[in-house]
Amino acid sequence: MIKVAKISVLGAGSWGTALSLLLHNNGHEVILWSIIEDEVKMLQQKRQHESKLPGVKLPDEMEITSDLSYSVKDRDVLILAVPSPFTRSTAHSMRELVRDGQILVNVAKGIEESTLMTLSEIIEQEIPQADVAVLSGPSHAEEVGRGLPTTCVVSARSRKTAEYLQGIFMSPVFRVYTSPDILGVELGGSLKNVIALAAGTADGLGYGDNTKAALITRGIAEIARLGIQMGARFETLYGLSGMGDLIVTCASVHSRNRKAGYLMGQGYTMEEAMKEVQMVVEGVYSAKAAKQLAEKYQVEMPIVEEVNKVLFEGKSAKAAVMDLMLRDKKVEAPVISWNEE
Amino acid sequence: MIKVAKISVLGAGSWGTALSLLLHNNGHEVILWSIIEDEVKMLQQKRQHESKLPGVKLPDEMEITSDLSYSVKDRDVLILAVPSPFTRSTAHSMRELVRDGQILVNVAKGIEESTLMTLSEIIEQEIPQADVAVLSGPSHAEEVGRGLPTTCVVSARSRKTAEYLQGIFMSPVFRVYTSPDILGVELGGSLKNVIALAAGTADGLGYGDNTKAALITRGIAEIARLGIQMGARFETLYGLSGMGDLIVTCASVHSRNRKAGYLMGQGYTMEEAMKEVQMVVEGVYSAKAAKQLAEKYQVEMPIVEEVNKVLFEGKSAKAAVMDLMLRDKKVEAPVISWNEE
Repeated sequence: MIKVAKISVLGAGSWGTALSLLLHNNGHEVILWSIIEDEVKMLQQKRQHESKLPGVKLPDEMEITSDLSYSVKDRDVLILAVPSPFTRSTAHSMRELVRDGQILVNVAKGIEESTLMTLSEIIEQEIPQADVAVLSGPSHAEEVGRGLPTTCVVSARSRKTAEYLQGIFMSPVFRVYTSPDILGVELGGSLKNVIALAAGTADGLGYGDNTKAALITRGIAEIARLGIQMGARFETLYGLSGMGDLIVTCASVHSRNRKAGYLMGQGYTMEEAMKEVQMVVEGVYSAKAAKQLAEKYQVEMPIVEEVNKVLFEGKSAKAAVMDLMLRDKKVEAPVISWNEE
Repeated sequence: MIKVAKISVLGAGSWGTALSLLLHNNGHEVILWSIIEDEVKMLQQKRQHESKLPGVKLPDEMEITSDLSYSVKDRDVLILAVPSPFTRSTAHSMRELVRDGQILVNVAKGIEESTLMTLSEIIEQEIPQADVAVLSGPSHAEEVGRGLPTTCVVSARSRKTAEYLQGIFMSPVFRVYTSPDILGVELGGSLKNVIALAAGTADGLGYGDNTKAALITRGIAEIARLGIQMGARFETLYGLSGMGDLIVTCASVHSRNRKAGYLMGQGYTMEEAMKEVQMVVEGVYSAKAAKQLAEKYQVEMPIVEEVNKVLFEGKSAKAAVMDLMLRDKKVEAPVISWNEE
């Protein structure tokens, strides 16, 4: 039996809203916070997020508020679900409110372009007294909201915190694995959007499933090469938060990254594609960060490199694919040696 | 520059036909062989495989024959493209024809149920004098026939043979990587159909992309656990011939394995689903072989186990998914340890 926990979900986008319902259904006492007054009012009145998660009803007993101090004080667990560009500023405003050792689970994905820090690193810098954890995996919010079977990974500095959170989140439709590899969990989820952009571009060029599977497989191999160099683990990068999340993103017709790539495959420039999608395309920023990380850690990332050329140097998508196909002849995994040698 | 090779493709199904065209387009001298007289006549007259690869034209100068002795003698490379149930019998009838050290590339996938041998092991047993290699990867024949960008792995006992074959197959639309890990290349391609069956079942149950990504990710983790125990390498199982091929199979609307799984998710029994699909569903046989291998090598394979229960013990697909979701709480990768321990 799980003890009922007092939980606040900070950020009422589609993911924050879906998670607050999941946690409520698991029997916990949930507060949902948003900084946007209008969003709070809409949620209080309609008991659903009309634009971001329509059709998913929130129970009347769930508290919805814009009072940050009230939401942080006295809670067992804080879930930080604000979009990655707001992670630092939100953490900063929480700094004085968080008590020593209070558990804070970040569920957003991203890398800060100016510092190349992961989101958990940013939070630990802003709120050093917090016990920071992360939750990630192949989890479209709409499907979690509808109660479709989903798996995720939770990672924390200590096994105790990770297992406590596993117990909090786990349900018959939400299976949670634990992992000690926070960095690996964060890197996979952040960098996969670059590959999703490339996979979308291949679709836009009219290529088939063979090409897409190649880009996904060789793409995650690049991410793994980088991640391992940075100290993350192979098993994590090929796990739910890395490869699993990449697969779900590349399969999805809803993914903005995939859609922006698709348009570029059809001949749009990056600016035209961004305008058409009308939302932040995270892969564009991750592409820059990935390229910088590749240079910093001296890792070969040919797909990331070509995506950057298409995005920022006006290279045609078709030429980029051809250059990838015609690279030097390679072994698949240089680490495996031939018997005779 | 690649020297022109004399190549025979043995087996004129969709994959054999697509590969013979690829090799012809690469400048090689290609003979296409089939044991089926009617198929040979149809191919000779129509210059395309009307049922299995419609619309893909074979050039007039490509020889098409049912003469096995003629097809084997004096060739630089033999490509064995017969379906896996015919690998042993075809290899057996080639035994006296193959010269010492003649290169023979198997491109079919499967595990012999009665012996649990891979196809290259069968061929080496039947034709010990052959230099056996394998080619595998995410490669729908129709897409290769249409010249869409595709990647594969070629593996052989010696680096020399693998690199020679890489040169033979590689083209601007067909990128080939080499690998010393024959076993890994074969296991991934053979076992992935069990997971494709499970992924199809999830689709049939009306579950979403989250569930499918979970089954693919945890499914390949099972295959990798088994493969490593058998002596294959992690990098190969997560490479093009393992994970890549699994992704392409699970994405495809053409896959028989996915379709049979879909029908079972909708409530069909295994027999009803097989009848509806009207073709051999390889995953059904692979499921048995995988289960036997899991027992032999004492590896935990929960998804393979549940697929077997649904196929052969009448368990409902829905109950199987629920049992997978509700297993004991686990760490994602037991090999990674917590810092404090």
